[in-house]
Amino acid sequence: MEPLSHDHVAIAVASLDEAVPLFERLLGLRSSPVEELPRQGVRVTFIGALELLEPLDPEGTVARFLARRGPGLHHVAYRVSDLGTTLDRLRREGYQLIDQSPRPGARGHRVAFLHPKSTSGVLVELVEVVQSTDP
Amino acid sequence: MEPLSHDHVAIAVASLDEAVPLFERLLGLRSSPVEELPRQGVRVTFIGALELLEPLDPEGTVARFLARRGPGLHHVAYRVSDLGTTLDRLRREGYQLIDQSPRPGARGHRVAFLHPKSTSGVLVELVEVVQSTDP
Repeated sequence: MEPLSHDHVAIAVASLDEAVPLFERLLGLRSSPVEELPRQGVRVTFIGALELLEPLDPEGTVARFLARRGPGLHHVAYRVSDLGTTLDRLRREGYQLIDQSPRPGARGHRVAFLHPKSTSGVLVELVEVVQSTDP
Repeated sequence: MEPLSHDHVAIAVASLDEAVPLFERLLGLRSSPVEELPRQGVRVTFIGALELLEPLDPEGTVARFLARRGPGLHHVAYRVSDLGTTLDRLRREGYQLIDQSPRPGARGHRVAFLHPKSTSGVLVELVEVVQSTDP
């Protein structure tokens, strides 16, 4: 079995406008263009291997996370080469899946989340990179 | 200025014995030998770019984190080539430091933590790798 490799860590913030310059200065890197993901209820940007999440939807999971715990570490994401096969393996091994099959995520990639109940309280995202077909 | 690169994500758990097999199976990787860090009040192991922290000291910060929030994402760590210089820069730029100067951390490396107050609620560790002098 192919080991999973680190893809990114995501932080929930109330405002990208406030958080982006702070992490750009800390890491010495520029953020990617902001992307809106209405189905996930978030606006996101990446600064290197860090994702910043701002709620779009005041009833969404990220807004509720912020209301309950304030800004902070939200999830960790690992890269896999074949997400469908990995989800089948994890289901067989007893991990609890939030997404039973891959769905579209940020940056055009295919993603699925595992439930924190079966991963020591940690929300885990799996990412299968979809190569851009842009010229 | 040299950009900071991702080093690891740390998860606080009540028991390494329970959490290690779960993350080894998830990631398809073996954990490193457990290391005790009495000054930080923790026992730690690494599984790839994931660190698992178990409290040694029931009054320590990781034990208090677990009591308050349960197991979950604890901090994110970035690698720097010269920790002293990076701390000077961050102090000048207004980041709040927990450690004013480098101190010994896991794996024999030099580390320092930034206060979550100045990093959107995220506990950030900086790591300067110290090459082992073992043969």
